[in-house]
This record gives sequence, structure tokens and C-alpha cells, in this order.
Amino acid sequence: MASTAGQVIRCKAAVAWEAGKPLVIEEVEVAPPQKMEVRLKILFTSLCHTDVYFWEAKGQNPVFPRILGHEASGIVESVGEGVTELQPGDHVLPVFTGECKECAHCKSEESNMCNLLRINTDRGVMLNDGKSRFSINGKPIYHFVGTSTFSEYTVVHVGCVAKINPLAPLDKVCILSCGISTGLGATLNVAKPTKGSSVAVFGLGAVGLAAAEGARIAGASRIIGVDLNPARFEEAKKFGVNEFVNPKDYTKPVQEVIAEMTEGGVDRSVECTGNVNAMISAFECVHDGWGVAVLVGVPHKDAVFQTHPINVLNERTLKGTFFGNYKPRTDLPSVVEKYMNKELELEKFITHEVSFSEINKAFEYMLRGEGLRCLIRMLE
Amino acid sequence: MASTAGQVIRCKAAVAWEAGKPLVIEEVEVAPPQKMEVRLKILFTSLCHTDVYFWEAKGQNPVFPRILGHEASGIVESVGEGVTELQPGDHVLPVFTGECKECAHCKSEESNMCNLLRINTDRGVMLNDGKSRFSINGKPIYHFVGTSTFSEYTVVHVGCVAKINPLAPLDKVCILSCGISTGLGATLNVAKPTKGSSVAVFGLGAVGLAAAEGARIAGASRIIGVDLNPARFEEAKKFGVNEFVNPKDYTKPVQEVIAEMTEGGVDRSVECTGNVNAMISAFECVHDGWGVAVLVGVPHKDAVFQTHPINVLNERTLKGTFFGNYKPRTDLPSVVEKYMNKELELEKFITHEVSFSEINKAFEYMLRGEGLRCLIRMLE
Repeated sequence: MASTAGQVIRCKAAVAWEAGKPLVIEEVEVAPPQKMEVRLKILFTSLCHTDVYFWEAKGQNPVFPRILGHEASGIVESVGEGVTELQPGDHVLPVFTGECKECAHCKSEESNMCNLLRINTDRGVMLNDGKSRFSINGKPIYHFVGTSTFSEYTVVHVGCVAKINPLAPLDKVCILSCGISTGLGATLNVAKPTKGSSVAVFGLGAVGLAAAEGARIAGASRIIGVDLNPARFEEAKKFGVNEFVNPKDYTKPVQEVIAEMTEGGVDRSVECTGNVNAMISAFECVHDGWGVAVLVGVPHKDAVFQTHPINVLNERTLKGTFFGNYKPRTDLPSVVEKYMNKELELEKFITHEVSFSEINKAFEYMLRGEGLRCLIRMLE
Repeated sequence: MASTAGQVIRCKAAVAWEAGKPLVIEEVEVAPPQKMEVRLKILFTSLCHTDVYFWEAKGQNPVFPRILGHEASGIVESVGEGVTELQPGDHVLPVFTGECKECAHCKSEESNMCNLLRINTDRGVMLNDGKSRFSINGKPIYHFVGTSTFSEYTVVHVGCVAKINPLAPLDKVCILSCGISTGLGATLNVAKPTKGSSVAVFGLGAVGLAAAEGARIAGASRIIGVDLNPARFEEAKKFGVNEFVNPKDYTKPVQEVIAEMTEGGVDRSVECTGNVNAMISAFECVHDGWGVAVLVGVPHKDAVFQTHPINVLNERTLKGTFFGNYKPRTDLPSVVEKYMNKELELEKFITHEVSFSEINKAFEYMLRGEGLRCLIRMLE
């Protein structure tokens, strides 16, 4: 055990004091991990849209002050009671959703939507005692999706920690703990295109490009990127996208454009925008008989998906996925191995890097729609 | 070759002269089979809702005079040019949809929606020459879905004929050529429930009960029948249905009732009514994480399927099926074998029998909602 085990650690964290205001680097106290909890030293974290969404807190219950952050890599500092699978020094990825290994979902081969540790964006405290492990002068600072990685140290439930190959470079695999795995798994685990098949990807942000990367790895021969921003096509080529459709260039619905390009429809589609009309197009653009559409993007709460049922009856499949259907503890180590054996390329997703003290720059890049992932180096 | 090969055969057929009027048994001429066609002697046929639907011809293009009928069994009388897989004397099931074995759908392992021979309810003629093989005094009588089995002899494209085990009793396997295979395959080939799982079946007519029979064969432990008619539950028990929900008995939506009965939802559902609200309920009643809903029932042309996309994103799957995903020529023989080895029980579907001369009685039973299948014996 490290000498800090069982002690409160004082360290730097980027605190969101209120909605939409720049984060402030503060000295915080991080309490020791309790039962089934792990305290992690975060080495790298990156910014995902979900952080920005809950930082803006538009239309949600605001939970402040809060330490955001959920894409990260780090090292176990100490473990709480009952934790047997992890020990100090283990290299890990904290994950915003979990795997208790006990519930019906964890026992199902098909689901990764753990009953105990499924993402909860409203909860700002730990499950064990309903309290936060972060404080400033005794005043609690709330957690975010059980990870709060914008801190040099954080406390996470053991079910939300994936132990990975210690040889994996933590400044690269960091981005596997959310968006990239979400897109990649949507294609590899759910859409499952075969070699030589056609795949349409709606939305060429980081998640969509990870979906395209999955299609490239699977050997799809036509990877059609769909995005309203034509500037994205050039970058998308690096991820295997070899055809581009901008819905704005056509008067007819994009599903009809794609059907004409592909003799009746693509074999698979993956929707990564969250826009309900894109979801409908993604479903209707797959070929009858065998087409599979996978929804990834998170919709507006009032959105309604609608289609003529004959589109379903003509042997199309509509599936949804959460975190690419990866079970965090069981499956993430193998995604890291895909990077280690050069099957999966991660470098091209990391378009920006900043030191922890410049974390607000990462927010600015994302708000300007610039780049894919901004890596935040905690040690600088 | 039979002595009738190459000759016009004069025989009895039940002709629908106009929409909704009783069929009339007439003497018709049946021309010899042309290229890639087969002439069959029909021994047994049964009545399916689709026959009644096109006989009533409400809201469709009326095609009359026409010989209806598409669930049947018979024996090959003679074959046309190019037919090598069948010969006179073969026992067969004619099918309303086909398998050319050449198109993208036939070559796909997943689809059975043959481009060439997919069901076409508007066409009343044969593909080879765009003409009918039936006539009365030289005046053509139209075909129906390429089968027209309400005739002692009929001409069918070879791609719509499944050659079956000659030991199979034709008065039983007759019903496998449409509805029963549709429901059975929806469960066994598409929903694929595992042993011990829960399955909800919407609509307890012949197709729905065949879906339940599939769930029974698959070893599902809870088979929940959903129907507005409580009288159907007693009969449904024979098909493995062991729980019953009548949506009329509740004020809340049936999907909520089922979720409460099953700790969050059933593992699989199969929708056999064609009612769009039942489709929505069938989708929303499956468990998140792993639930699969399969649509079988044919919707109204103006129907709109709608659901909140989060129901999809929570890892539910929506699939549609046509003819239970069976490829007629490749797969139907194995369904016949399921009956032969007593895995599948067909007798319980055949609730009525009439001689050919009484065929209008079969229509009356169906219009009154009486029974499941009425077998029509052509030789009596």
C-alpha cells in the first residue's frame, strides 16, 4: 500500500462551481476509498461532449459544485474493504458505467446495462454512504457519473474500474474509457458488418469516426460518412470513410440518396448524432432483408422515433447500444489489446493536448467544434 | 411423365368472380407449365386470412375473376423446360413467395425476400409470358400470389415449390406453406428465445399460436398470450401459452402490465396482429439490455410505428420478419421434418375440415372468427 493509503489526500482538482462558468483549479481533499471503492491517481483525462453537456446544465437538474470528467486513465493508489480484484499500482481505466457482476444484466451475455452501476448523471455521491469523497474545507464537492476524473485523485466504485495491460500507454488508451469505445463497439459488437460490406455512419464526430474505425477494422469496403459539415470528410478519410453524403446537398431524404448509391440500401448503419431525424434516416437507409441499423447518439427527451412498420417487416433490424455493448471490466482490457496489436489506431483521435492547468482550453476547443479529443495531462 | 404432360388439363377450380361473392366451382382449363414452371395436382389446401382479404378486396386493386388459395400440399404432375430439381410424383408445398437462388436476397444467409419471386399480390399472371395458365372457354382467370391452390391443378414457378419428404402426410403439412411457418419461424429463426426464457405473443390466432408453439419448442418457461378475446386463452394453452393478458382488463398500457409481471420486461415478444399499437406495445414490453421484439402482423398502409428512441438505445432490438425468415425451397423441408419427428404439433391447428365443394364454408368459419385452420380436401 502507498503511504497515503487510509489518509485523506490533498490534491488539485478542476471544480465546476456553477453552470457554464470556467472550471477553477482548487486544492481539494479526497477521502480514502470505502467498501468496494478504489482511489485512483489520474494521469490522463480527456474531454467528452457529456462533460460539456452537464457543465452547461441546460434543462437538467444542476448539480454543483462538481468535479466533472469521465474519460481517463490512471493507477490504483489504494483500495477499500472487499476489493480483491485490484491492488495499488494496477493500471486502470475508470468508466462512467459499471459492472457489478451480480445483477441480471451483468449475468446476461447480451447486456452491459448493470442495474447497480448503470450511468446516473443526477447522482453526485458514492453509493456506499450516499456522500461525496471530495471536499474543500469540509464542504462537499459532488461527483460526476461515478468517475470525476478532472482531479489528480478520485474515488470510484470497483465495478467502474477496468484493469488493463500495464504496458499500454496511458496517454493513448485514456480515450477508450468513453466515446471511442462507444463508437467502436457499436460497429464491432452490435452492427457487426462483414468483410466487404457497406456501412453508413451518421455524424463524423469522435464517436462516429470510432464507428467508422470499427467498420474499417471489420473490413467493410464502403464506409459512407453522413454529416452536415463537409469539412469533416477530409479528416474522416483517415478513419476509413471513403464516400461522403451531405444531406444538405439533396432535396430528397438522405435514406433515398443512400439507397440509390447502394442498390437498395447499406448493409449496416450507425447513428452517432442523437438527432431523431438522423435516426429515422439511419434506419430507413439499410437494405431490406438483412440491414441492421444501430442507434448510439443520445436523443432529446421529447424526441419520437417514427417509421412505417413495413420498413421493419421487410426484415430490417433496429438496435440500440450503450457504451458499445462493452462490459467495462470484462471487455475493455481486450479493446486495449486491439490498440496494442495495432489493429485499432488511437493516435488520430487525439487532435489536441493541454496541461491540467489549461483545462478550460479543452472546453473551448469542443465548444468551437474543433478537433476530436483533447488530452489533458494531469502531471503537467 | 404423366399422360397429361404437355396437354391442357380440364379440372375443377373454385373461382372468385367478384369481390366478396361466394366462390363458384367451375370447370377450368389449366395450360401446361412453361419454362421454369411446374404443374401441381393439389390434394389439400387451407384457408388463410390473406385469401379472405384479397377476396374482399377492400381498398385494393380488385383482380377478378381469380383463383385464390396459397396454403396447400400436392404432387408434381409435370414440369416445364429448365426444371431439373423436381419431377412428376414429387410431394411438394407451393408457397406464395419464392426462392430463385440467384438474387442478392437468395444468396444472403439472412434474407428470404427473393427479388424475383417475392410475394406480389397485384400480379395475376405468370412471370414467363405475363399470361394466366387458367382459362374458362378461352377467357383467362387470374392467378393469386403465384399459387392459386383452390384448383385441382395449378401452375407454379419452380422457385415457389418446396420438395418435401414423401412420407409426410399431405393433409397435415399442408398448413406449413403459409401461416404456421410464419409464426413458428418468427420465434425460432428471429426471436430465438433461449430455454427458460419469457416470451410474449400478441394475437392468439393461428399465426400467433404458431409463434407460441415455437416458444414451447424452444423451451421458453413463460409464454404470455396477449389478446382482446379472453375466449382464446383456453385453446392457447395447448400451444404452450401459460399466462394471459387481456389489455382491456387494465387502464395502463399493456407494456407496463407485462413489465410488472416480469421484473422489467419479457426476453422476447412476437407481434402477430398487425395493429400498430400492439406493435408498439410488443416493442416496449421487452426487457432493456437484451429484449428482442419481432413484428409479424401486416400493418395498415397508413400506420406509423413510434416510440421514444431511448427505448431503442436501452439495448432493445426491433426486427421484422416475412414468412418466418424461411427460404421456401431450402428451409421448408426441415420444418416438415420437425413435424415428422414430433417436435412440432400440427394437428391442433386444424380445427375444421370441408370437402372442396364446400369451400365457401371455410370462408364462413373464418369470417366468424371460428377455429384456426380449415382444411379443404380436394379429392372429396
